[in-house]
Formats: sequence, C-alpha cells, structure tokens
Amino acid sequence: MTAFGIRGTFLDFIDDPWKHVGREKDAARFLVDGLLVVEDGRIADFGTYDGVAARHAGLAVTTIRDRLILPGFIDGHIHFPQTRVIGAFGEHLLPWLQKWIFPEEIKYKDRAYARDGARRFFDNLLASGTTTCQAFTTSSPVATEELFDEAGRRDVRLIAGLTGIDRLAPPDYVDSADNFYRDSKRLIERYHRRGRNLYAITPRFALGASPDLLAACERLKREHPDCWVNTHISETVDECRGVQDAYPDSGDYLAVYERYGLVGPKFSGGHGVWLSDGEFRRMSESGAAVVFCPCSNLFLGSGLFRIGQATDPRHRVRMALGSDVGGGNRFSMLNVLDDAYKVGMVNNGTVAEPAEAERNRISPYRGFWSITLGAAEALYLDEMIGNFAPGKEADLVVLDWKGGPLAQSWRQSLVVDEAGPSTLEQAADLLFGLMMVGDDRAIDETWVMGRRLFKKM
Amino acid sequence: MTAFGIRGTFLDFIDDPWKHVGREKDAARFLVDGLLVVEDGRIADFGTYDGVAARHAGLAVTTIRDRLILPGFIDGHIHFPQTRVIGAFGEHLLPWLQKWIFPEEIKYKDRAYARDGARRFFDNLLASGTTTCQAFTTSSPVATEELFDEAGRRDVRLIAGLTGIDRLAPPDYVDSADNFYRDSKRLIERYHRRGRNLYAITPRFALGASPDLLAACERLKREHPDCWVNTHISETVDECRGVQDAYPDSGDYLAVYERYGLVGPKFSGGHGVWLSDGEFRRMSESGAAVVFCPCSNLFLGSGLFRIGQATDPRHRVRMALGSDVGGGNRFSMLNVLDDAYKVGMVNNGTVAEPAEAERNRISPYRGFWSITLGAAEALYLDEMIGNFAPGKEADLVVLDWKGGPLAQSWRQSLVVDEAGPSTLEQAADLLFGLMMVGDDRAIDETWVMGRRLFKKM
Repeated sequence: MTAFGIRGTFLDFIDDPWKHVGREKDAARFLVDGLLVVEDGRIADFGTYDGVAARHAGLAVTTIRDRLILPGFIDGHIHFPQTRVIGAFGEHLLPWLQKWIFPEEIKYKDRAYARDGARRFFDNLLASGTTTCQAFTTSSPVATEELFDEAGRRDVRLIAGLTGIDRLAPPDYVDSADNFYRDSKRLIERYHRRGRNLYAITPRFALGASPDLLAACERLKREHPDCWVNTHISETVDECRGVQDAYPDSGDYLAVYERYGLVGPKFSGGHGVWLSDGEFRRMSESGAAVVFCPCSNLFLGSGLFRIGQATDPRHRVRMALGSDVGGGNRFSMLNVLDDAYKVGMVNNGTVAEPAEAERNRISPYRGFWSITLGAAEALYLDEMIGNFAPGKEADLVVLDWKGGPLAQSWRQSLVVDEAGPSTLEQAADLLFGLMMVGDDRAIDETWVMGRRLFKKM
Repeated sequence: MTAFGIRGTFLDFIDDPWKHVGREKDAARFLVDGLLVVEDGRIADFGTYDGVAARHAGLAVTTIRDRLILPGFIDGHIHFPQTRVIGAFGEHLLPWLQKWIFPEEIKYKDRAYARDGARRFFDNLLASGTTTCQAFTTSSPVATEELFDEAGRRDVRLIAGLTGIDRLAPPDYVDSADNFYRDSKRLIERYHRRGRNLYAITPRFALGASPDLLAACERLKREHPDCWVNTHISETVDECRGVQDAYPDSGDYLAVYERYGLVGPKFSGGHGVWLSDGEFRRMSESGAAVVFCPCSNLFLGSGLFRIGQATDPRHRVRMALGSDVGGGNRFSMLNVLDDAYKVGMVNNGTVAEPAEAERNRISPYRGFWSITLGAAEALYLDEMIGNFAPGKEADLVVLDWKGGPLAQSWRQSLVVDEAGPSTLEQAADLLFGLMMVGDDRAIDETWVMGRRLFKKM
C-alpha cells in the first residue's frame, strides 16, 4: 500500500488526565489543521498540516471537514455472544445469567449461528466507533474460532479467548477443565498474534471456575506468558459472597486469581465494583487492570464503581472502560461514558474527601482518554494503538459533533459556530456533548488499519 | 373536521400495573388489529378493527403497518429554557444552576430568543414522541408567553407557568414576589384553559422562594383553585439542608409547601429523591404527585429515587416521570425509562424487603404506564389524555420497534419475526427493548389532536 494522508481536526492524548488535576488539557493534543500520514496501515507521520505536508511531497490527501478525528475507541470488556440478548428484563447478575444468557450463548455451538453473530458483533462495534475490544466468547471453541476469523477478515485488533466455565451453568453449557486446557492450547497456537488477533486465557469468573479450571489457566499462562488473561471480578455482592464460600481460604476475590498466578500485567478484571482498598492497592502494584462497565453495573443493579478510589494516585489502578454488552445495554462507548459520568456524580453524593470527589468526575478529557490511550495502557496495547503516535496502527474514528438526537446541534452551537472548534477547550466541550447528549449517530466514519470500514449512511 | 380512522396495532393502559403485581398485563390493553376513530381531534371510538369498522361505514382509514401505536408520552417535569444548555459539565445542582443555568435562562427575557427556544423545545418533544409536558419557564413573563403561544399554535396540551424565584439567583434573574403575583395573575387570565394550555402556579423551589413569594403562590392558588401548582422538592441533600435553614419552623421540605396551602390535587413536586416515608404518606393522602426524573438525578448526582417506597400500596403516591432537561441529559422519555430502570435495579442492591424490591423493577408495563396514563392521573389530566378511551384527545405516538442503534433489530428478532407482535407479552418485550436499547429513533410518527405533527425522515 502506498502512503496517503488524512487532513482534518485531530484530538488525541499523550498522558493520563488524572495526573493533571486542574490542568487536564495538558494530557491532550489538539490539531485544528492536522495531517496524519498512513503507510501499510500504520501511522507514518502526524502533526500540523503545514509541518507534515512539507515532509511528504506528492502525498495523496483525503480531507475531512467539520469533524473531530480521534483514535478508535477501545472496549475493554464485552461478550460477543450476548449481542442478541442485549437489554433483557428484570434480573440481577446470577439469575440473569441463568434465565437469559446461557440459553443464548449455547446457540453459539452452531458454527453458522456463531459466524452470523460474529459478523453482527463487528458491525455493531464499527458503527459505534469501536475499533478494538477485549471480548468473552463461550465455552465452545466454535464461537471463539468464528470470532477470531471474523476479526482477521476485517483486520481488527482483538483480544479474546475461549471462555471457561465448569460449574454454575447448564450441563450442556459447562465444559471440563481438561477440555478447556486442551482447546485453549490449540486456539492459542492458531490465533495468538496471527494478524492482529491476541489471545486471552479467559476463565469466565471465579464462581463459575473450579480449582481445576483455575489451575488449567495457571498452567496456560505459565506456558504462554505472552498471552493476556481476562475475567470478571467483584461484580455483585452476591457473587462476592459466593466466591468467598467457594474459595474460603482466599482472603478476598482478587486473592483467588492471585493464588493461581494470574494477576499481573495483561490481567483484566471486569467490573470491580466491590473491590476493597487493599485489592485496588495489590492490583496497582502488580500492573493489573480493572475494567469499569457503568451501563452494566447500573442495568444489572450491581452497584457504583468507586472511580475516585481506583484513580487514587497512591494506588492508581490501570483502568479501561467496557460496554459489557449484553449486561450493558448499549454498544456505543459514548453511551458508556454517559453512564460513567453518572456513576461518578452519584458517588459524589456520598464521598467525603474532596480529592476523591474530584477524581470521580469523568470530564471529557478523562472520558475520552479512558476509551483510547488509557484503555490501551490498561490492556498493554499502547505500543500498537491508543493515539496518533507514529508507528502505531491507524485506527481512528471520525466524529460529527452534531450527531445524536435533534437537541444536539443547538447544544453544540453554544460552544462553536459553523467554523468548528479552534481550541482544545472547545473540542473538549463538544466531546462532553457527544458523551451526554449524543450516541452512535455521532460516528461518521470508522477506520481500521488505514481503511475506512464504516461510513454513516 | 370529518371523522377518520387509524388502523394498526395498539397498546395502552387501563389501570396501574403496580396494582397487579405478578399480573401486570391486566393493566394493559393490546389490539393486534385495532381501529381508532378520530373526530375533531378527539377519540370518537376505539376497539378491534372488525368491531369498530362495522359501526362507521364509509370511514376514511389510514393504515399503519409494522408499528406499535401508544398514547403520546407525557413528560411531567421539564425546563423549556434549558434546551440549549443540556449536558453541561461537572456540577451538582446548586453550583450547576449558578454556573450554567441562570446565564442561559436570562437570555429568555429577549422575545426573539424565547420564541426560537420555544419552537426548538416543541420540535424536540415531538421528535421524542412527547405530546404533553409540564414545563418550567423563567422568571420573565416573556418566556412564559412565548411558550404558551407556541403550544397554542401547535395545539399541544401543556401545563406551564411563570417560574418564580426571588433569591439565590443573579440580581438580573430574580424578581419580586409582588411582580410574580401580578404577572402570574395576568398570565392565568390570558392562558389558562385557552385552547389546550393549562396554567401552573410555579414557585421554582422553596430554597429560591422567600416567604413572600410562597405567600403570593398561596393567594394565587386560593384565587385560582383550578390552576395547577408545579415546583421542585427534595432533590439534593444540600438543597434539603438549605430549606431547613431557610424555613426552620417547618418539620420537613414538604411542610413548607403545605404551610402555604399548595399541596393537594394538581400539586407536583419534581424529584423527591430525599422524601421521607412520612412525606410520601402525606403526599399520598393529599392527592399530590411526585415527578421522578432519573436522568437528572444521575446526571447531577442528586441520588437514587426510592421507587419502591413511592409505590408502596400503603401510601401510594401519584407519580409521573420527567426528563428534567437540562438537568436531565435526554429529551426522549425512552431514555428516561432506561435510567429509571437502572435506578430501580441499583436500589435493589440495598433494599431488604422483597416486596419493595419487586416494586423497584420498572417493567415495560410500569414504564410505559408511567409516561402515559400514570402521568395523566398524577397530573390530573386523565379525563383528557393518557389512553385511547373515547372522548379523550387523540394524542398518539407510532413506534418502530426496530428503531435505535444497529443492535436493536436483531435484539427484537428474538421476540417477534417480521409479522410483528401477536400477543401483549411480545409487545411488552419489544417495548422493553425500546426503553433499554432504543431511543428517539424509534419514534416514527407523533400525532397531536388527530394531526400528525412529526414524521421521522
């Protein structure tokens, strides 16, 4: 592929805004008239149009007007086989799994159904501006294969893995620890680092995993240390209680995963609503990540994630955000930011310490960092994706700041006129409008490895 | 206007689903093939197509296919002059008013701005399927006049009133109790029961109202007992504390309004997040209504409304739902139901009594009743609107159950095939999909007084 350029207005991040309290904009980068040079799917150059264009004589340039161009969004926690059962009524986590989720996921043993599901899954992600996700599959290798194959066809960066569960699910859904080990090995060989696919050893959650299954995970991680580990942690009070009963020798939920050598860099625990200060501290020290899933935590009534605790500089935990479809009821990471903001604000009705309350506020800087560079850092993908640094893969989303319901365009007209944003502050205010008033309608284009894979109709 | 018919699939309510625990569908009515006869803007007849058509030979009939037709939605609490400042960053109620809201509302002293705002306001409502609202205006009569005039031009049923505040706002925003009394009188004469306009005596909230202002409200209500009373109550902890300081002789927040003779039928208190059991009981006995505004309560971090308490049969409070734009970040009552469901589910993480937990669940029956007949009953409008009973005004919304983000259509295909719903249960499940996965994109048409005022493009 020869090089080409994209000219437009760019916003990305170079640091964590939580490190710049009171000066969050220092973590962001804004180019009113920027040029991104793409070569073989990667970012070859990036900067002001005048500066970059001078270095690339004769470059073919696509100009994108009246839009904000951001790095593609990253969804840190999502269940691909729950696409169809999104928004299922009336239950908290454990009964919801039994009533709605397992019956749907069982269908993914059928290859045709799984293939169709994978196709629809990526269609939804790309229409939402999400270019990378870390996904759960099912206990069936068929579903995992179809997901990786579809990601490969689209050349989308993906972290996923066979999702192990050997108890607490219907007999035709669970599988044995031995089978999980054998199938995971085979899938790692076949998919890990093939194209943009990355493999995560994936015990579904401690409550659904016997000691044998977790021991299989430990062995897999030891044999394949380059692999990711993805699971759930401390999502609901009932689940935490169950884990305590199932693993009475472990002091807390995190200790179960620690005992099996899973916690460290490239480990993700989804939810973490009920993590203690001590668990946050140990996750921080180990380099593990928590994935905050606000839509899901509200939809399933799991509780309010303590953003201000997770981001405490004394024990800062790597943090990504997740839609958690279908526990979360929206694919769009903009909707996820809507609910994340609300969780932070409701937390602040009860938080006493002003500094913690301040950290609970999901500003547009914190929000969009969390679904781009912050997520990439949390998931140890920041050498590949997350911002427009040369060398990274050219995944990007083109945002129409007037996108969303009718109310959006007049709202945004308080910030900018037809000429669009000329300052970072204006751009950030437009982005806040997108997360609170907008939705997937704001996604005008989604580009993956320098190719436009979605264009709004 | 000669009579005409609308043929399609109808769903409305004839009772309160909270009265039918375990058999909520007994509160609803579903006609797969129904016919609604409209004459002079009112419902002249309604029932199965075969039954009704036989009574109206030669009737011109519009057939609406592949849609669910519901009564128009009712928004019980919204601020018309906050349309543009929707989704403003970072503050809880009291600082948010000072920083974002008053500066915008002051602009509505200008008639041209207010007229443009009123036009946009109704455009947003109708695009969201909302055919009636109870609205706050500003302290300026200009804004109130423009709102009523615009409602009159569209023939939309509206409750509104000059919004009195004589302290706790910028000097150029507050107005005196005397002016409020005089202007309110004039506006009542000019607008109350003119066309579909209804007047609400509207003290903004107790904290912003001096005893003189509340005394003026009392006098207005005594002189115009047919008028509504609309205000805020117990929205945030800080506000409740402030009211206690301002009215130390009143035992609680409700008691302030009681003392001035405002609490009773046609009284609405918006929010009520922090109402005590005793206040719920007194509201119940008096026939007053609370308006639950979940988007706003989350967005401003005000707290979690105790749905299960308000709906306790021992002291059932009339309840409507409100978008509370701009404290709420979405105009669509579908989005309001999304957040209402989440508030109920999060409440259930802490509620001990199973019956209360059950009442906290916003099923589709409870949700859609709450924004149609339930709201009409709460606001004492149920002789005019709320369901398809003959004699009522023909306000209706035509819902596309596939409307929303891409994920919606596959989700709904789990419930029905292309033929659409044939049972009430299926229709209710589609409606749950609309409230949790859908949004204003599901609004295909909005009809007001038998005229179609909105058609999705």
